[in-house]
Amino acid sequence: MSSPAATPNPTGPNPTAAVLVIGNEILSGRTKDANLPHIAEKLAGIGVRLREARVVPDVEEEIITALDALRGRYGYVFTTGGIGPTHDDITSACVAKAFGVPLERNAEAVARLERHYGDPSKLNEARLRMANIPAGASLIDNPISAAPGFRIGNVFVMAGVPNIMQAMLDGVLPQLEGGPDLHARTVACELAEGQIAADLGALQDRYADLEIGSYPYFRNGFFGVSLVLRGTDETRVVAATEELAGIVLRLGGTPNVTVGTKG
Amino acid sequence: MSSPAATPNPTGPNPTAAVLVIGNEILSGRTKDANLPHIAEKLAGIGVRLREARVVPDVEEEIITALDALRGRYGYVFTTGGIGPTHDDITSACVAKAFGVPLERNAEAVARLERHYGDPSKLNEARLRMANIPAGASLIDNPISAAPGFRIGNVFVMAGVPNIMQAMLDGVLPQLEGGPDLHARTVACELAEGQIAADLGALQDRYADLEIGSYPYFRNGFFGVSLVLRGTDETRVVAATEELAGIVLRLGGTPNVTVGTKG
Repeated sequence: MSSPAATPNPTGPNPTAAVLVIGNEILSGRTKDANLPHIAEKLAGIGVRLREARVVPDVEEEIITALDALRGRYGYVFTTGGIGPTHDDITSACVAKAFGVPLERNAEAVARLERHYGDPSKLNEARLRMANIPAGASLIDNPISAAPGFRIGNVFVMAGVPNIMQAMLDGVLPQLEGGPDLHARTVACELAEGQIAADLGALQDRYADLEIGSYPYFRNGFFGVSLVLRGTDETRVVAATEELAGIVLRLGGTPNVTVGTKG
Repeated sequence: MSSPAATPNPTGPNPTAAVLVIGNEILSGRTKDANLPHIAEKLAGIGVRLREARVVPDVEEEIITALDALRGRYGYVFTTGGIGPTHDDITSACVAKAFGVPLERNAEAVARLERHYGDPSKLNEARLRMANIPAGASLIDNPISAAPGFRIGNVFVMAGVPNIMQAMLDGVLPQLEGGPDLHARTVACELAEGQIAADLGALQDRYADLEIGSYPYFRNGFFGVSLVLRGTDETRVVAATEELAGIVLRLGGTPNVTVGTKG
């Protein structure tokens, strides 16, 4: 009984990724992170599997340690937060340190800020800090407020403000090498997890190449469960979905099948 | 330019904590985690500082590695997810492995499930799995759906469904050793971060015992910034807040001061 069941979680040929959320405000409970689910969905859409996320405070050692752990392990790392003009914005300097390169004032970044602020007196030293970029990095466009993110190696450094981060990510996605499409179906029903668990486990055993998840819900006054099947082979996903719908019917439930992971 | 400014982030005498979110559904983007901000706020309320969070998939090796890293480093670790009846619920078995103890069918947990389900035929083997608890752990009450969480060492294992997790946490909080109250003030104003950054950095230097954060916002058609000051010495927090309000006024802004980290 001491050995957990092996849970298949195949990444197969799909590139992997991690997210590093940087900011005291997430850990203090002040701010609810909205970036992780957005990045997760966008990556899934191009066949990149998000495999880990971490949240660390605005502390140099914490940022560097987490970044090094993640960039050594996953295909892509996306950071959010800490690239603004204030004293607590230390992400760019930390990334430079992690990569062992100098943090330099980037001429193209300065030019973008000059265009954005117009009046040179507005482009003060604090704002110019946002043009400090690790040597060798390439800029990530910021169509909202000009101050760029950057890519260095497999690390993409983006803003924490959600609409800016989203715009940056839209620009980045075409640069990524995606993987085979991830196909998903959701079978929702008003059975309890415990009623279907045995059959679901047996189904997972027969479809070890798929990832089958079970998520209980309480909606509109009813308890139920959403069963999500994911994999790169659509015919296998569809076959498992049909089997699962049959199981739900046999147990007295009404399967509601949708494409995707919602539902 | 290659060395980031030291960012004070004093934990002082406050106990520290980490959160480990377990579940493929968070990394696939299917489910937005709602537990981290809730735990963060509750911990801050008793003077415990949340210092890190990680999200890992339902994979034994990932869960154990993350758990061991976090429990060795922080005073408390709170896990969410993976303690239900289905094949992808492997948290309890992983925690047992991490602690090197057997996973045992817990008599008290079985009794609670028996009371909850009433009809013995409903308490099938899948549901009984929820009574498998690492040896030596103490149970965490689940007033919603009976199946308990548990505490072992400095690790608190809780459900992933938010209302169940919240009820479990309410039961756990009185068991924790809290720390000195964390006092916070927020100064919001319609200045841009870049306008106030230099003065804010100088203020942080003078109040190295406080944590001062700067969070830009766009609300009701206006850009602005919320400046958050946190620390255990309320007189210092209040003094820094007054100085900051003065700075905002001098720069032509209108400081809106509130107690707490919101605003």
